[in-house]
Amino acid sequence: MIDMVYRIQDLICADLSTLDDSNFREDVWSRKEGGGGRSRVFSGGKVFEKAGVNVSVVYGTLEPEAAKAMGGGKKSSDNDLDFFATGISLVLHPHNPMAPSVHANYRYFERGDGQSDGSWWFGGGADLTPSYLFEEDIRHFHSVLKASCDRHEVASYSKFKAWCDEYFFIPHRGECRGVGGIFFDDLNQKDRQSCFDFVEDCASSFLDSYMPIVKKRKEMPFTEKNKQWQQLRRGRYVEFNLVYDRGTTFGLRTNGRIESILMSLPLTARWEYCHEVEPGSREDDLMSVVKNPVEWLQ
Amino acid sequence: MIDMVYRIQDLICADLSTLDDSNFREDVWSRKEGGGGRSRVFSGGKVFEKAGVNVSVVYGTLEPEAAKAMGGGKKSSDNDLDFFATGISLVLHPHNPMAPSVHANYRYFERGDGQSDGSWWFGGGADLTPSYLFEEDIRHFHSVLKASCDRHEVASYSKFKAWCDEYFFIPHRGECRGVGGIFFDDLNQKDRQSCFDFVEDCASSFLDSYMPIVKKRKEMPFTEKNKQWQQLRRGRYVEFNLVYDRGTTFGLRTNGRIESILMSLPLTARWEYCHEVEPGSREDDLMSVVKNPVEWLQ
Repeated sequence: MIDMVYRIQDLICADLSTLDDSNFREDVWSRKEGGGGRSRVFSGGKVFEKAGVNVSVVYGTLEPEAAKAMGGGKKSSDNDLDFFATGISLVLHPHNPMAPSVHANYRYFERGDGQSDGSWWFGGGADLTPSYLFEEDIRHFHSVLKASCDRHEVASYSKFKAWCDEYFFIPHRGECRGVGGIFFDDLNQKDRQSCFDFVEDCASSFLDSYMPIVKKRKEMPFTEKNKQWQQLRRGRYVEFNLVYDRGTTFGLRTNGRIESILMSLPLTARWEYCHEVEPGSREDDLMSVVKNPVEWLQ
Repeated sequence: MIDMVYRIQDLICADLSTLDDSNFREDVWSRKEGGGGRSRVFSGGKVFEKAGVNVSVVYGTLEPEAAKAMGGGKKSSDNDLDFFATGISLVLHPHNPMAPSVHANYRYFERGDGQSDGSWWFGGGADLTPSYLFEEDIRHFHSVLKASCDRHEVASYSKFKAWCDEYFFIPHRGECRGVGGIFFDDLNQKDRQSCFDFVEDCASSFLDSYMPIVKKRKEMPFTEKNKQWQQLRRGRYVEFNLVYDRGTTFGLRTNGRIESILMSLPLTARWEYCHEVEPGSREDDLMSVVKNPVEWLQ
């Protein structure tokens, strides 16, 4: 898993660097409680306002409070405070409001001995956050994820798709962060190799799922009004990440590397009091699907 | 208390409207579980990027989870789920990066019968969040608050000043949101009238504490770099409010009016990966005092 996340980070960063004609800033960091990571971020690129691709390998002893927040491996005891975690996490926020933001994260956890049932599990997923709807883009993104799921017995696209809609829901807004994708956690069916094969397949197909979309949208014309709408949607992105996202809230409570945890936040965001979309507008089209998740592949 | 918060809202809004040459949008709202409020907000004014002054009077029965989050009245039982709350809350974010943001909130709570010891209490305070340091401004702000405290036996500036620094601390950043002011909660010493008199004094002196500062700074020259720094500091404001602020997190969990709760967020904010200030710069001056709170009146 460690080898895989580093390898995929290299592959993804190479393609993103070429597309954007930008170099990532790399920070190799360590954590005094055990482990560390390699963060690669740039902002103000040609295509991306902000792009971050992080890998981390951390281990140690959990604080009891953090242990509760960690959840996972249902059968492991809450008293088992030793943990190991590794994963790749990426967030891309393009400049062009017609090009969607994207997030993906694939991770492996151990709690306790890492051998017995429930002491190891995988989690992850990928999801798309457009400001404007292009249904063909969303169908493409979902179909690549479904193809990965369909190749593996341990995975179920329909289950993981529904889980994604549920996870990325912002209760105080009554809407989803975006148009979904897949999300899964506590994946420990069959054996570790089967689960790993699925996770590797997903991570390896990230570029196929997203690059065609951003290439198609990155130079589309847009207005100042489109840009402001994108900024408002980025405000919702910030709300979800700071208030609900488990990775973020867990990181803030466990002495994680703050800059790596918060690299998921957009470069800029906006909040307007009582902003309302015009009925029947393209902004309204987006609101319909974030308020009522769609089965994109039916 | 209800009369007072409505009266002070009128006074403050009148002065802000005159200063900004802007009219507040007013929303009178009600809450299906009981009570409601009057929100007044404008954005894109001449002086203020966003200005909000809210009054609310809410009551009903708490969800047990919300009851725990509510805290307060130490002697009241956690099983006592009936509550009443009223208060005024304001947040002002000026355009000019030399003019500080300000927040103030004065509130009264009852839990249970509202008569017995610990079943009623007051809370509140005011604090200043500059992007650039003008020590005379901060001393002026603190001295007005200290004068209110000094006029009332139930209050202690030194205690409430320290409490403010502690409350507005952002643990994951190791810094305070701003340069403080006063904060108090669970105020139920002596009798209700004495506590009310103090709270009314504070609320009534808000304009004296802040208006001279914003008038002095609103037309100062500034650069694009100053503006970007202000936007980064507003990002920290968002982090504090969404992750730690009790009023906000309580509101998000209790079906409060979302637009009123989140009106405290700035119109725009920014996050840069690994941003660092230049040693000895004016930005660095600010960082020193948010990392190491200062006794401004000594």
